[in-house]
Amino acid sequence: MFKKLLIANRGEIAVRIIRAARELGISTVAVYSEADKESLHVALADEAICIGPARSVDSYLNMNSVLSAAIVTGAQAIHPGFGFLSENSKFATMCEEMRIKFIGPSASVMDKMGDKINARAEMIKANVPVIPGSDGEVYTAEEALAIADKLGYPVMLKASAGGGGKGIRKVDSSRELTAAFESASQEAQAAFGNGAMYIEKVIYPARHIEVQILGDSFGNVVHLGERDCSLQRNNQKVLEESPSIAIGKTLRQKIGAAAVRAAKAVKYENAGTIEFLLDEKTSKFYFMEMNTRVQVEHPVTEFVTGIDIVKEQIRIAAGEALSVTQDEIEIKGHAIECRINAENPAFNFAPSPGKITDLHLPSGGVGLRVDSAVYNGYTIPPYYDSMIAKIIVHGENRFEALMKMQRALYELEIEGVVTNTEFQLDLIADPHVIAGDYDTSFLMETFLPNYNKED
Amino acid sequence: MFKKLLIANRGEIAVRIIRAARELGISTVAVYSEADKESLHVALADEAICIGPARSVDSYLNMNSVLSAAIVTGAQAIHPGFGFLSENSKFATMCEEMRIKFIGPSASVMDKMGDKINARAEMIKANVPVIPGSDGEVYTAEEALAIADKLGYPVMLKASAGGGGKGIRKVDSSRELTAAFESASQEAQAAFGNGAMYIEKVIYPARHIEVQILGDSFGNVVHLGERDCSLQRNNQKVLEESPSIAIGKTLRQKIGAAAVRAAKAVKYENAGTIEFLLDEKTSKFYFMEMNTRVQVEHPVTEFVTGIDIVKEQIRIAAGEALSVTQDEIEIKGHAIECRINAENPAFNFAPSPGKITDLHLPSGGVGLRVDSAVYNGYTIPPYYDSMIAKIIVHGENRFEALMKMQRALYELEIEGVVTNTEFQLDLIADPHVIAGDYDTSFLMETFLPNYNKED
Repeated sequence: MFKKLLIANRGEIAVRIIRAARELGISTVAVYSEADKESLHVALADEAICIGPARSVDSYLNMNSVLSAAIVTGAQAIHPGFGFLSENSKFATMCEEMRIKFIGPSASVMDKMGDKINARAEMIKANVPVIPGSDGEVYTAEEALAIADKLGYPVMLKASAGGGGKGIRKVDSSRELTAAFESASQEAQAAFGNGAMYIEKVIYPARHIEVQILGDSFGNVVHLGERDCSLQRNNQKVLEESPSIAIGKTLRQKIGAAAVRAAKAVKYENAGTIEFLLDEKTSKFYFMEMNTRVQVEHPVTEFVTGIDIVKEQIRIAAGEALSVTQDEIEIKGHAIECRINAENPAFNFAPSPGKITDLHLPSGGVGLRVDSAVYNGYTIPPYYDSMIAKIIVHGENRFEALMKMQRALYELEIEGVVTNTEFQLDLIADPHVIAGDYDTSFLMETFLPNYNKED
Repeated sequence: MFKKLLIANRGEIAVRIIRAARELGISTVAVYSEADKESLHVALADEAICIGPARSVDSYLNMNSVLSAAIVTGAQAIHPGFGFLSENSKFATMCEEMRIKFIGPSASVMDKMGDKINARAEMIKANVPVIPGSDGEVYTAEEALAIADKLGYPVMLKASAGGGGKGIRKVDSSRELTAAFESASQEAQAAFGNGAMYIEKVIYPARHIEVQILGDSFGNVVHLGERDCSLQRNNQKVLEESPSIAIGKTLRQKIGAAAVRAAKAVKYENAGTIEFLLDEKTSKFYFMEMNTRVQVEHPVTEFVTGIDIVKEQIRIAAGEALSVTQDEIEIKGHAIECRINAENPAFNFAPSPGKITDLHLPSGGVGLRVDSAVYNGYTIPPYYDSMIAKIIVHGENRFEALMKMQRALYELEIEGVVTNTEFQLDLIADPHVIAGDYDTSFLMETFLPNYNKED
């Protein structure tokens, strides 16, 4: 096992990793920006090194600084957490070259799954269902029309070389297709110097279902069931749960097996997540993408399986075999996570950094966990994301979990900054959410338009 | 189910019960003394009623005040927690008369098990092993000598009408017996007007093993495994764990079955604990007493079984059947609780009340729970017991649980008052404790005499 681990992250996930390492008897090195000197991850780690100014690009994204910190402290491994350098294959390669273990899959796997068209091809090979669409690039409106008519509308036109929302069009009928194709392709040509497109069927309504997997260096891969992350605002997850109310035992086995096939196809090592869209009516699911790192919402899976995913990551990276086989993994009860953000729902969820003048985190009783990096008197810096705590509950069933979440959110007190705590309380009191009757569009298209704190 | 519940207690157990009630959708009434106006249980309850001055006898032990509070608020049930009125059969009777459900066994069962000689007789009838001793009262030194010689030394002479340490003698050999008997009997005669004695063999070395049981009004009784509470200072438990390292599968079944027999014999309803002494060499166990209430250390059992004991108590009192059968109960992993007291180990553990000027409770990660009633800025009053928090951890095995406890205690920060946190850290770092090699005498006779913070 490693003797010393560097955590290349900040906030609650850095604290989460430090706690896991300490429980494994591994000493920890925190890195921090100048804005994070007073952070909890700095206070809790055995050593802490400043790696640059506040801006992420100068500190947490500065590969040379992070690597230098590891070298100078003699850290044998780096845990990247999520965000920042966690899916940066160049950084993973640099770690490999310096013989520091990057806790995650190899750089080549990250590259393979990071490219969407390539990932799609890998999944088709592995017999994992993908969103129906063109098999390669499409160059003319005529070709596009034939494919779209076959797929059925609505379809999405996407620039093959795309990104950042350029060269994307949603098309609802064949009448609209030709004009949309021409304009999108021209936009793509202008933006990327490449007018080639690809076409995907729009899966709607759909649930965002993701399957947690673990793979070790011996080729063992298991899945830990699914998470339902359909409650999203601007593609940001707000509340996550496991299991999904839309998934029965048979479908769980099917989607789990598909996730395991996906991971095995690329010889995946460490923790990862396969994201799917689920068409609830047909029970058909479609590969979206793979996240080659630990997720924000991993604790709901930890609650229902009893498996410590971060410890497994560290053990796998140290060359140990998985601590469980698929047969031993059992999904017990129901877990829900609410993300607590320093943001103002009344002002379009604008970030609300500042000093926490009084803090009372919920605790106690059965099945409650709070992962957070805040403390009384802490000043939330304005430079990073606004998530400051995760409240996670585990009940015998979904109803009990919802009741626990309500109790926990009632107890939560954060003074000095505005948070979305009330918003989360309102969300879990919504009849659709109570019934589990929601898809990825629910929050934006149904809940938010009717949401008014003054009513 | 009840609509409204009054909690006749304070501190962390009152908060624990309020949380469970809220998760069951029951509204809560807190009662509080004048010293507890600013307490967390008052802040968290839906209603709160002052029931008298600071002294317990004027408030938390004042049966009329507590009952009046229940009547005036329309509470349908009273949860007594532990201590205070929790084992007071007169209070239970008064509740019955007012048709307010006392959450615990009936007054007659409390009386039956509260009287030690009577409880012993009940246990013998139920075929539960008791500490070898005289079958009834002993009136002469000759009788006593014959019995003690047969039992084997050391023995304990106890005044039949006794209490408060009067008329008690430990006797190590037959030579000492006659004189000891005469003096103890005379002391008993003087103190209680009754010189009758009884004699018990001293079980030493022994472990304090207690079995959690649950019984419902349909006659169903289950046990939830054992807790090892051998680490005690002046008969106060300091650290508790489940399962016990001294108990294997066969012995667990045996001691569990004995506890179930004990509970069934008295038609026990609600949560209770059967305390045993275990002679580790012979694997023989002996009934000590039954506690007819929830225990401080119930969370370790909740962690290893996944069963919410306080919710079960409320459901049982509301007439529901147990939510589990014995077959469904599985002991998973290992749990440890450390009691955090506001006390000064350097001054013979003198209580250290006062204002908490800064507080950081450990949280996050897998398998950690903190049950507490303190908050930042809270003033611990000097009138009640000094326990202010319980840190409870759950690991896959005992070693992981110890590592988690160490990590949690490192994170705990309580400024403004002295606590036993460092003492607990030293205790779990002791080789005997790490090995699980301790009995009820270990803390007082081995650990404390060698304990010196300055070394």
